[in-house]
Amino acid sequence: MSVHAASRHRVLIIGGGYGGLYAAKALDKAPVQVTLLDRRNFHLFSPLLYQVATGALAPSEIAQPLRLVLRKQRNARVLLGEAVDVDAAARTVSVADGTTIEYDTLIVATGTHHAYFGHDDWADHAGGLKTLEDALEMRARILASFERAESEPDEARRRSWMTFVIVGAGPTGVELAGALCEIARDALPRDFRAIDTTKAQVHLVEAADRVLPTYPPGLSRAAARQLRSLGTTVRTGTRVVGVDEHGVLVATEAEGEPVRIDAMTVLWAAGVTVARFGRALAEATDASTDRAGRIEVAADLTLPGHPEIFVVGDLAAAVWHDDRMVPGVAQGGIQGGKHAAATIKARLAGEPLPTFSFRDFGELATIGRLRAVADFRRVRFTGVVAWFLWVSIHIALLIGFQNRMLVMNRWIWSFLTRGRSNRLITHAGARPPPPDRD
Amino acid sequence: MSVHAASRHRVLIIGGGYGGLYAAKALDKAPVQVTLLDRRNFHLFSPLLYQVATGALAPSEIAQPLRLVLRKQRNARVLLGEAVDVDAAARTVSVADGTTIEYDTLIVATGTHHAYFGHDDWADHAGGLKTLEDALEMRARILASFERAESEPDEARRRSWMTFVIVGAGPTGVELAGALCEIARDALPRDFRAIDTTKAQVHLVEAADRVLPTYPPGLSRAAARQLRSLGTTVRTGTRVVGVDEHGVLVATEAEGEPVRIDAMTVLWAAGVTVARFGRALAEATDASTDRAGRIEVAADLTLPGHPEIFVVGDLAAAVWHDDRMVPGVAQGGIQGGKHAAATIKARLAGEPLPTFSFRDFGELATIGRLRAVADFRRVRFTGVVAWFLWVSIHIALLIGFQNRMLVMNRWIWSFLTRGRSNRLITHAGARPPPPDRD
Repeated sequence: MSVHAASRHRVLIIGGGYGGLYAAKALDKAPVQVTLLDRRNFHLFSPLLYQVATGALAPSEIAQPLRLVLRKQRNARVLLGEAVDVDAAARTVSVADGTTIEYDTLIVATGTHHAYFGHDDWADHAGGLKTLEDALEMRARILASFERAESEPDEARRRSWMTFVIVGAGPTGVELAGALCEIARDALPRDFRAIDTTKAQVHLVEAADRVLPTYPPGLSRAAARQLRSLGTTVRTGTRVVGVDEHGVLVATEAEGEPVRIDAMTVLWAAGVTVARFGRALAEATDASTDRAGRIEVAADLTLPGHPEIFVVGDLAAAVWHDDRMVPGVAQGGIQGGKHAAATIKARLAGEPLPTFSFRDFGELATIGRLRAVADFRRVRFTGVVAWFLWVSIHIALLIGFQNRMLVMNRWIWSFLTRGRSNRLITHAGARPPPPDRD
Repeated sequence: MSVHAASRHRVLIIGGGYGGLYAAKALDKAPVQVTLLDRRNFHLFSPLLYQVATGALAPSEIAQPLRLVLRKQRNARVLLGEAVDVDAAARTVSVADGTTIEYDTLIVATGTHHAYFGHDDWADHAGGLKTLEDALEMRARILASFERAESEPDEARRRSWMTFVIVGAGPTGVELAGALCEIARDALPRDFRAIDTTKAQVHLVEAADRVLPTYPPGLSRAAARQLRSLGTTVRTGTRVVGVDEHGVLVATEAEGEPVRIDAMTVLWAAGVTVARFGRALAEATDASTDRAGRIEVAADLTLPGHPEIFVVGDLAAAVWHDDRMVPGVAQGGIQGGKHAAATIKARLAGEPLPTFSFRDFGELATIGRLRAVADFRRVRFTGVVAWFLWVSIHIALLIGFQNRMLVMNRWIWSFLTRGRSNRLITHAGARPPPPDRD
C-alpha cells in the first residue's frame, strides 16, 4: 500500500486487444485506477481482418475506439502511445513520446505480429494480415491484380496476375483462400470485359501435412474438401523456400527440386513473432521465451519472480493443462484478461486468489458461403450448421452494438447479392510493374 | 466513319468523378465503345469528404467501385491507370504504365486538387481535403490532437493542441468548422478524463469579407450566425500569410502587423489547381487557362479547334451566361458530362446538336445538426428546413443503393446519439512532436 492513503492501486494495461480490453472492463468499479495504453486508438477484432482484406467489410466495422468502449468506466483512462521499455524494479513503463508511467500492477497484452521465418525481404512481395493497414494493403493488392490482368495483353503474364498464393493454412489462410475463390467466382465476373475472373487460381501452401493443423484431423479433411470444391489448389506438406515479385518457390518432401509458382500476388498468413515491447519486457525481467518470442508465464499468468506483472493474450506462452498451450485466439485473451483483473481484485480485498483454467470453447473457421468447420470438443460440425454458428459467434464477439448491426447488414447483403461492396483501392494500389516488364 | 464498318466510334473518358461517370452512363446503348480511365478504381462523392474527415462516415460509404457502377453497361469498360499526356493530332492518350489509348472523341474530367497559393511547404502542416486519403489523414490529425492534449501537462501547449484553424470558408471550410465544433461539444467530452473538449477552439479564416463568398450575402450572414452559435470564431477579411507546425500567421486590412494563432492543427479548405493531365492537355492543344489552370472551353464544352475534345467538370472554365461560370460542384460535372454524351450521340445520328445551358439548382451548405443554409435561387432557407433539404439531396446524389442505406443509417444513428463512430486513427496518426518540445 502506498503512503498516500487516498491514492489508489494503479493498474497499467498495455495493449487494447481482447486481453487488455477485457482486463480493463473487468476492473470496472474495483478500487483501482486503470490506465489503458495503446499505440492505436481503437480495439480491433482481428478474426475478421480477412473480411476487410477481401472486401466484405469496411475497416470501421471491425474496430471500435477504445475511448468509446471505456467512456462510462470512471476508474479507467485511455492513453495513446507506444510503450518502449519497462523498469521492473522502479515499476515504471517508458513511452515513445518520452513520458514515464508508474504502476503498481502491470498487465501486458501487446500480442504478436506476422514474421517471415527470418526472410524479412519477403515482406515486400508478400503482405501479412495483422493490422487494418495490412488488410487495406492486401485488398488493394488483390483488386489491383485483377485490374492489371484486365489491361495485360500477354497471356502468360495475365495468368500470373490472376494467380494468388496464400502461405499458411491456419484459420486466416483458409478463410482468405475461401473468400478469394468466392470473389473471383461470384463477385467480380460481370465487372471485367477482357478477363474471365472465374479462371483465377488460388494456391494454399502449408508446410504441415494438413490444413488447419491445430484442429482435429477430421475437420482438416472437411475444410480441405470444401476449399477444393470452391476451386482452391491445396498444397500441404509444402514449404515456401523463396518469394520474389514474380511468385514463390516451393519444396515438398517427395520432389527433389523446388518448384516455381508464377503469381504476382502472394499473401502471407504464416508465422508470428512478438512486438518490440514484448522483447523489452522479457529482457528486463529475465523471462524465458519460446521460439516465437512468446513469454513463458506461471500458472496464474504472472512472470516468475514478478507477481505484479501479468502477461495475457498471445504474447504469453501459457501452459493450460496436459502441456497444452492457451491458443492465441480471442478467447485466450478474453479469459486471460479477466483472470488478471480477478486476481488483482482478490489481492486488494485479501480474498483467496482465483486459479486460471482456460475454458476451451473449441475452434471455428469459415471457408465461404454456407461452408465452415466447427470443433466444440464434444461436438463437431461442418458445412451449413458450422457456418451459421461461425456467423453468430463472430457477431457476438464484436465490440459495440452499432458494429454488430452494420456487420450483420453487410453479411446479409453480401449473402443475398454475392457481392462485395468494399472494393476501394486506397493507400496502396497498383504496385509498380516488375523490372523485366517490356 | 472508320474504314472498318464493324468498328464503333471510340469515346475515351478520363476521370470517374461526376463529369466522367455521368458522361459514361449517358452513353449507355449509344453506338459507341466507351473506355473510362481513372487513377482510382472508385467514384468518390467528394461533397461528403468532410464527414469522413470528422468521423461521421466511413470511406466506403461515400465511394463506389467504378466497375460496379458500370457492370451492366455492355458498351463500357473501365481501365485503371493515370493519363499522363495527349497527342491531339494522333488522337491518342498515353498512360503512366506505358500503354497508349486511341480515341475518336475524348472527354476530359480530371478535376482539380487543392493548392497552397504557391506555398507548397504549407502542405506539411495544413492537410487538404480532396481524396479519401486526405480525409483519413485529416481525421487522424483532429483525433490525435485531442489525444495529445489529454496527455499534455503544460497548459499553453494543451490549449494549442485544442485549437484548430480552418483556412477557407467555402462550403468545405464551413462544414468542417461546424462539424468540428459539434465533435468537441457533443461527441467527445465523456471520452476524455484530463481535458474538457468543449473548450476546444475552432477558427475559420477567410480572405473575403464573408463566409460562403459565392452565396447570396443573406445566407452568408445566416451561416456565420449559425457557426458562431456552435462556437466557431469566424475571421473574415483575414489572409493567411504563414503556416508552420505551431500555427498560422494571419493578416487583416485593419491591423498592421500579422497576428499569430497558436494551433497544432491547421486544416486547408482553400485554393484549387488543376492536376497534371489537365496541364498536359492545355499545353498539347494550346488551350487558354484561367489563373487556377482551368481550361477555357467553348459554349458546347469542347476545346476551340478541337470539336472531338470535351472538357467537363471543374477542370473546365465554362462560361454559362451573363459571364457567370459553371460552378465546380457535382451538378456542374453531371450536367457537363450528360451534355458531352448528348452531343456525341447527336453527331453520330446526324441530328441537331444540343446547346449547353447550366441549370442552376442553387447552393447548399450544412453547418451542423439541424443547421444549414440553402439557396434555390427563387427561394432561400436557413436552419432546420435547409438542413433536411441538405440531407435529402445528398442521399439522392450518392451513387449506389447500399451506400444510400448505409449513410442514412449512419446519419440517423449520429442524430440520435450525437456520436461519431468512425474515429479510427489509421495510416497517419500522431505526428512527431515539434522540435522545440522539451
